[in-house]
Amino acid sequence: MKLAIYGYGNLGRGVECAAHHAADVELVGVFTRRAPETLKTLTGVPVYSVNDILDFKDKIDVLVICGGSATDLPEMTPALAEHFNVLDSFDTHAAIPTHFAKVDKAAAASGHIALISAGWDPGMFSLNRLYASAILPDGQDYTFWGRGVSQGHSDAIRRIDGVLDARQYTVPIPEAMAAVRAGENPTLTTGEKHKRECYVVAKEGADLCRIENEIKTMPNYFADYDTTVNFISMEELMRDHRGIPHGGNVIRTGVTGMNGEHKHVIEYSLKLDSNPEFTASVLVAFARAINKMHSRGDAGCKTVFDVAPADLSPLSPEELRAHML
Amino acid sequence: MKLAIYGYGNLGRGVECAAHHAADVELVGVFTRRAPETLKTLTGVPVYSVNDILDFKDKIDVLVICGGSATDLPEMTPALAEHFNVLDSFDTHAAIPTHFAKVDKAAAASGHIALISAGWDPGMFSLNRLYASAILPDGQDYTFWGRGVSQGHSDAIRRIDGVLDARQYTVPIPEAMAAVRAGENPTLTTGEKHKRECYVVAKEGADLCRIENEIKTMPNYFADYDTTVNFISMEELMRDHRGIPHGGNVIRTGVTGMNGEHKHVIEYSLKLDSNPEFTASVLVAFARAINKMHSRGDAGCKTVFDVAPADLSPLSPEELRAHML
Repeated sequence: MKLAIYGYGNLGRGVECAAHHAADVELVGVFTRRAPETLKTLTGVPVYSVNDILDFKDKIDVLVICGGSATDLPEMTPALAEHFNVLDSFDTHAAIPTHFAKVDKAAAASGHIALISAGWDPGMFSLNRLYASAILPDGQDYTFWGRGVSQGHSDAIRRIDGVLDARQYTVPIPEAMAAVRAGENPTLTTGEKHKRECYVVAKEGADLCRIENEIKTMPNYFADYDTTVNFISMEELMRDHRGIPHGGNVIRTGVTGMNGEHKHVIEYSLKLDSNPEFTASVLVAFARAINKMHSRGDAGCKTVFDVAPADLSPLSPEELRAHML
Repeated sequence: MKLAIYGYGNLGRGVECAAHHAADVELVGVFTRRAPETLKTLTGVPVYSVNDILDFKDKIDVLVICGGSATDLPEMTPALAEHFNVLDSFDTHAAIPTHFAKVDKAAAASGHIALISAGWDPGMFSLNRLYASAILPDGQDYTFWGRGVSQGHSDAIRRIDGVLDARQYTVPIPEAMAAVRAGENPTLTTGEKHKRECYVVAKEGADLCRIENEIKTMPNYFADYDTTVNFISMEELMRDHRGIPHGGNVIRTGVTGMNGEHKHVIEYSLKLDSNPEFTASVLVAFARAINKMHSRGDAGCKTVFDVAPADLSPLSPEELRAHML
């Protein structure tokens, strides 16, 4: 399978690593909006300008679009689906139906496949919500995120006057998880499921009280949460908070039997050292799947819900049945 | 969807309950090898003899075969796939390729769909092994079973002279699970992952030492395990060990990055009050899927690996994308 990467940030580098280690993947190149000569790839794979992408129409089986959900992907994915099989990790949950419609129109018209919103949430967590709810219709599901770095919340802190740098961890509340696992079906807001831990490097002489107060009262981001603010030095931040870990849990509890007399708990959990590299690994598996689907004549916009699991694996159906079933 | 049940033991009753609670399922009837008039169903659904099954050729969308894997399913599933869309929970892992080939021949020739080996292992555990290995190819997976009742091991104890009744629990060893979750990639035999707890009711005056010794030295079943034998009264057995709980964990640890520098843990776990009712709930969800697949013209033998998750849900693709992705 010939893969190419469109956009070279943390996610793009993750796709490069995953493709490099996959025996059935050949990485054609990285496409960037920057000047190609300014960019050095991890594996030495060639770098091209996005302006030259159409020269590669017949040289790429699947193009992995590694842009941001806010402004990049809503434009990029439909435009590129006119010429390539593409996939993205569009993660603005509320805007998925609109994004799907635009991408589907472009992909269906050109006979390509476009898979949107792959990754872990949306992605593997979505799959687990779907499987669990189909099996236990009489039940309820809960998604917990963390412990992990939220880029959006870290950025929000950095915009406060007097802040040099910051890292925000979303942390699931153990008591809330325990109540869910016990089948108590609690009603929980996001703030009742999670607390927020902030590690902040302040400018010398900055008013720490004011900064802490501005964080804790920030609407949407922190005001509704149990928020802890820790001021640390730049050295500590660099030493202890360099990684981009994340993860979380999808839990569904439900009942079966004539009168709902038997309880069941289905739980899926991820503990990730690197959020972008794991997301990238999911993208490469789904790239393999849409390449197979396209070679069977399928086209249009897809999500992880539309992909038969066997298509994700480099193993043959016979090998899968013999060794994994 | 018109469903029927073929075989009415614990699993068949579980399918009856799950079908009864599913808004999109109509249960046509239960087919039994016993005299139909001797059998009373939980929901009052009619009971027919298996000899009359062909009278229902156009009245059933999917037939759920609830027989045993040892002798029933290898005969029943291929024979019934000639006339119906069918699914079974065939769970003899080593014999799956042979079973698949026989069923595929019958189903493909008649234009029906037959899905084999649905349930949780094989079934949901298999799916999680496949997804996790496709995402983290540089890794290793581990399956732990329990804490739960093993019917086969309980039966083996009951065959010992002097034993009135018995219940055997398979119990995962916490230290082994901890080593796996820590990414230590230990090499573990089934006996190093699990211990066996036995609750035994002995005949009055029976030689308890001999019984305990016969259990602990029984080849394959107990000899390679840390086995505990507890003698209890029939009252205690009936009071404390009536249920059929089970569950387990599928854990894959793997690495990403240029040099495998980032670790990840993917874990799927089940805690089930009723093993047969949960298995039945999985069967009903996959029955829905193969009914949709058949209506799109698909035929032949399938496994859970071949089913796009969206087909399991009664919700429309639009609803799934809007609410579960």
